[in-house]
Amino acid sequence: MFVSHLACPKCQAVYASEKIVQLCACGAPLLVEYDLDQVKNAMSKDALHRRAPDLWRYRELLPVKDEENIVSLGEGMTPLLPMKNLGTKVNLPRLYLKDEGIIPSGTFKARGATVGVSRAKELGVKVLAMPTNGNAGAAWAVYCAPAGIKAVIVMPEDAPPIPRGECAIAGAQLYLVKGLISDAGKIVAQAVAENGWFDASTLKEPYRIEGKKTMGLEIAEQFKWELPDVILYPTGGGVGIIGIYKALQELKAIGWIEGKLPRLVAVQSQGCAPIVKAWEANATESVFWEGAQTLAFGITVPKAIGDFLVLDAIYKTDGCAIAVSDDEILEAEAMLAASEGTFVCPEGAATLSAALKLAAQGWIKPDDRVVLLNTGSGLKYPETVQISPPVLNPGDTLPGV
Amino acid sequence: MFVSHLACPKCQAVYASEKIVQLCACGAPLLVEYDLDQVKNAMSKDALHRRAPDLWRYRELLPVKDEENIVSLGEGMTPLLPMKNLGTKVNLPRLYLKDEGIIPSGTFKARGATVGVSRAKELGVKVLAMPTNGNAGAAWAVYCAPAGIKAVIVMPEDAPPIPRGECAIAGAQLYLVKGLISDAGKIVAQAVAENGWFDASTLKEPYRIEGKKTMGLEIAEQFKWELPDVILYPTGGGVGIIGIYKALQELKAIGWIEGKLPRLVAVQSQGCAPIVKAWEANATESVFWEGAQTLAFGITVPKAIGDFLVLDAIYKTDGCAIAVSDDEILEAEAMLAASEGTFVCPEGAATLSAALKLAAQGWIKPDDRVVLLNTGSGLKYPETVQISPPVLNPGDTLPGV
Repeated sequence: MFVSHLACPKCQAVYASEKIVQLCACGAPLLVEYDLDQVKNAMSKDALHRRAPDLWRYRELLPVKDEENIVSLGEGMTPLLPMKNLGTKVNLPRLYLKDEGIIPSGTFKARGATVGVSRAKELGVKVLAMPTNGNAGAAWAVYCAPAGIKAVIVMPEDAPPIPRGECAIAGAQLYLVKGLISDAGKIVAQAVAENGWFDASTLKEPYRIEGKKTMGLEIAEQFKWELPDVILYPTGGGVGIIGIYKALQELKAIGWIEGKLPRLVAVQSQGCAPIVKAWEANATESVFWEGAQTLAFGITVPKAIGDFLVLDAIYKTDGCAIAVSDDEILEAEAMLAASEGTFVCPEGAATLSAALKLAAQGWIKPDDRVVLLNTGSGLKYPETVQISPPVLNPGDTLPGV
Repeated sequence: MFVSHLACPKCQAVYASEKIVQLCACGAPLLVEYDLDQVKNAMSKDALHRRAPDLWRYRELLPVKDEENIVSLGEGMTPLLPMKNLGTKVNLPRLYLKDEGIIPSGTFKARGATVGVSRAKELGVKVLAMPTNGNAGAAWAVYCAPAGIKAVIVMPEDAPPIPRGECAIAGAQLYLVKGLISDAGKIVAQAVAENGWFDASTLKEPYRIEGKKTMGLEIAEQFKWELPDVILYPTGGGVGIIGIYKALQELKAIGWIEGKLPRLVAVQSQGCAPIVKAWEANATESVFWEGAQTLAFGITVPKAIGDFLVLDAIYKTDGCAIAVSDDEILEAEAMLAASEGTFVCPEGAATLSAALKLAAQGWIKPDDRVVLLNTGSGLKYPETVQISPPVLNPGDTLPGV
């Protein structure tokens, strides 16, 4: 393992990585730092291309010492799909979709979970707790099962129902709360303090982001180390965008990529857009968004603990932040399925809505290579497709097409 | 492309592959034959290992001439997971799960669809129709969308609801029928005859099986060309088991594997077990199963058109056929999730129930390498997990664990 230490991006404090740490004493999230000179010597693109197609192929840039501690369900190396039909239709001929629906538990949360749980196991964690809008809790629950870690999951009562079943069948202790993820977070914080459990909340431990960053590593590898121009990311807690930015910086440091980084775009819903509001004000932090509500439930995060890192990634890459409406999201979801066959989650669909708006504004140019990051499968959101197909009796005749 | 012709496994008739063909004139399904000597020269294991991790890596053994016709959503190279915890618990230390839940549309039906639809596109098909228990229809619908092929899908009213949404959002024409898949099949057969549509029913066109066979190719590659001892497969129409057997014969012919083939096990539900009944009677064909009913809806096929090929594969590999109950299936589903974190579909869970029974009978030995083929994600069957988690108010306290 090439981890050197944990570092606070806010106050620059340094922590050893060999014991359980949560936040920095200053209250900010900690990031994992590597000895990148050693990584550079240990890792080669050639060896990489011969490894199994999962995210553990980047093991030199991941924080697990003993391979025995890795809890894997075969996650990662999700498809990067050229959106040929759709790209032609909307005059973005170099449009791609990174499809995180093709992964255990059906969402990109599996990345954070495989790395976070593996490292927690390595550090001797026995019980962990987390608030969630559904999918992160489900992912951590299914990885905790083989790791022998007890998971306590608290999610809003209004969260989509399928992740509940995943938590339950994997043996997690599941609670619903009449409120938002911020209310679930307060309940978890109190329980963690009282019981000495590990707090697996977004960015309250340093390892989930290491899993998420593999999206950036894969995008670079799948583009043969020639980066795209724009990556659009549906932003709730923002761990993915922070992780992608971190990954690209690490790849730069080991000399695997060069030149300008892709412009990173944080996509939010008009019903909960604290990052957009902060970006529009050129602020370095966001303000709690009152009355958050959107069908893109996974990005209903009124105030993200890593907001300053998300904004930093946007500013440093000349990116932007943009909000879209629920109607635009549903339209984009249908457009993706009908033209490309990809059934994406509402959060993923939001990135298409955003790309169309930014192209209309001229911020995205027709010859830009543009990546939509679809964070999960539409299969987890069947309620977004409302239909009443005709019902036949045996022997009935079909009409023509 | 190395396809030489289409051949009838029943009457040995031969057909050209360059135009649209459905069944043999004798009523049996047609199989795709390759010039395997040429394949042997064109394909190397080394080149293979450098290809992208999807099923099109085996393109020399697949029936598409022009790569432009390939409609792919990144399907295949699904994980082969060692079931360490579970294997220890049930004294099958070399137990594996091939997880076909990690694939576009969430089930192995994507394999048949990507190859079937690509070839249909290549041959100029404009409209296709099919009866389905849900997942095959969903998979064909999503691949038909980017192919520009109109899909007409008929499924039983009792089929699980999620695939309906997939069909609809991808733009297919969807119908429900008050009956079984056999009733849907009759409606489709009539419509196909009247309208001149392409009939994409199971084994009524020769190409779906070519997609399914890639499961066998992948299992061989993932075991580094040293085959396992037993493969358990949940059997409805049986295309997968026929395909796996075909794949292994082709690999043998090109010299990539040798020795005894794995014993193939057809797993059915006690509520619909025509193949088991035929196998127990040492018959070469099955009899229509009256009153079929099981929660493993995907394998509710009262009489499969390829039954004689399924039985042949079982007999030739010294395999067997075995039925399990719905209660055993639900128990196995929970056992897999709680010990390994894998949330499988009921059909996939049935293979674990069957393995446990066969191990108890001594038919499977503790040192056998055993592969459970999970045909789809449990995410598509949320109704199999019934729970009532406690509901908290903001500020409530969690109990201990």
